[in-house]
Amino acid sequence: MDRRQFTKLAFLSGGLLSLLNGCRSLASSAMEPLPANASPEARKQRAGELSDKAHQAFMQTGDDFKMHGNEQIVMLIYPGFAALDLVGPHYLFASMMGAKIYLISSANDLKPVKSGEGLEILPTHLQSQCPVAPDILFVPGGTDGTLQAMKNTVFIDFIKNRAAASKYVTSVCTGSLLLGKAGLLKGRKATSHWVTLELLPAFGAIPVKERVVWDGNLVTGGGVTAGIDFGLQMVAALRGRQYAEAIQLQAEYDPMPPFASGSIETAEPFVKDNLAAMFAPLIEKLRDVSP
Amino acid sequence: MDRRQFTKLAFLSGGLLSLLNGCRSLASSAMEPLPANASPEARKQRAGELSDKAHQAFMQTGDDFKMHGNEQIVMLIYPGFAALDLVGPHYLFASMMGAKIYLISSANDLKPVKSGEGLEILPTHLQSQCPVAPDILFVPGGTDGTLQAMKNTVFIDFIKNRAAASKYVTSVCTGSLLLGKAGLLKGRKATSHWVTLELLPAFGAIPVKERVVWDGNLVTGGGVTAGIDFGLQMVAALRGRQYAEAIQLQAEYDPMPPFASGSIETAEPFVKDNLAAMFAPLIEKLRDVSP
Repeated sequence: MDRRQFTKLAFLSGGLLSLLNGCRSLASSAMEPLPANASPEARKQRAGELSDKAHQAFMQTGDDFKMHGNEQIVMLIYPGFAALDLVGPHYLFASMMGAKIYLISSANDLKPVKSGEGLEILPTHLQSQCPVAPDILFVPGGTDGTLQAMKNTVFIDFIKNRAAASKYVTSVCTGSLLLGKAGLLKGRKATSHWVTLELLPAFGAIPVKERVVWDGNLVTGGGVTAGIDFGLQMVAALRGRQYAEAIQLQAEYDPMPPFASGSIETAEPFVKDNLAAMFAPLIEKLRDVSP
Repeated sequence: MDRRQFTKLAFLSGGLLSLLNGCRSLASSAMEPLPANASPEARKQRAGELSDKAHQAFMQTGDDFKMHGNEQIVMLIYPGFAALDLVGPHYLFASMMGAKIYLISSANDLKPVKSGEGLEILPTHLQSQCPVAPDILFVPGGTDGTLQAMKNTVFIDFIKNRAAASKYVTSVCTGSLLLGKAGLLKGRKATSHWVTLELLPAFGAIPVKERVVWDGNLVTGGGVTAGIDFGLQMVAALRGRQYAEAIQLQAEYDPMPPFASGSIETAEPFVKDNLAAMFAPLIEKLRDVSP
């Protein structure tokens, strides 16, 4: 399922719910307004009542809406991972009430893992504590760090092992190269950062230049910031469209990029060509560790 | 300067550079293509040459373009901060070659600071190591964590103190409430998460519902994901438009939100009204610690 199919499906499934919810929304706002000079205590009590009613309204929105869940979400990190690849989806997954996130280091310890940009993040669990059949297995990308992680056969075997029973196997950016190294892309549509898309066929993948690419239980996102679009699609898949819409509004995800340079289709040729050239040495090194 | 003014200025300043760069781009691609059967060594050598030439091409793009710099960027964290508020701009700031990022905890120690979503991030410096006149002072937002941080008078005093000589004083999301608490918003245009925009006037601020709001050296971003738009505007201000365009392409920031619910103007009333109601108790608590 590609982005357009996903969006279409999401809109169709959301249509009926909207009709239903129009009425429910009225129910929750049927309280008498407070007088302007209401006391702080009265305001707080009213705020609590409003919050409870809103909670109930969301709970009644329909079959595919799940306010509470117990998803197990495994997010892997390794030295040099791109922190934004991780934190975009992490924010969205963490907004799923009841879901549990396992942040697990390639080093199989609880020491801080330094991102490619210098942010040090602490794992939450050891590999031995990792669920065998998580709802989501997620791998972020990076540059030199990803190259080194591709050479770490113990880590690659761990990815392969945990992917076997995962409901969804996922990545953002060059994280798909790690999935490829683990043999998880054979014959499947996948995406990656635009710079590394050309490497996917070596892993038997069918490269697709889309923001988020669905192929069965394999869901891969494009470069870095695609993690936010990816994460919202995953929330919709696990909790229903309306839950994802609420989280998108909570994250105020109404992006306004200051320039039109976010894609190779729209970036100025000078910027695109020279940036691609700056990545050329990394591509050659990545090619060396690809099949 | 608001978003539209910024974009207009950025486009104007970029126009001349584009003309210049059309020629320079050709110069860097004037190498003879390698034969298809070139050896891995030859490919690697060529990749290195291409990268060097691209680096030089970028360096020659014009007066406002700075490939290398020595900016001092202070990013403050506190228990319960929203990790994505921080990591969006952090990724972009870290992409400015030569810039140094100081990640500093409200607790004035180097212990991990847990975000509202459970991510534990390590500070890099103590408050005593913080530059007195940084290029950027940045404060992320959060929910209950921000409420607690507003009550931490030592932390608020530290923000006020370091803001005095900062080139830019900045925030994302509810981080602007911390700036307000430090007395930095008086008589100035500012923004915040859509839920907390109504609280800004209590701090003497003029609330503006924009993605990124510029008022002199005060730059505030909207909720959570606005940090990416904010960060790119800051990179453009410090390194020039073309640098920011390259970083936008590196981050593949060509967003495709799956739903139209990222703004209160476009979200379904049911989602908007009930989400706002769920935040009502927090708003009342924040009101208690506002002037």
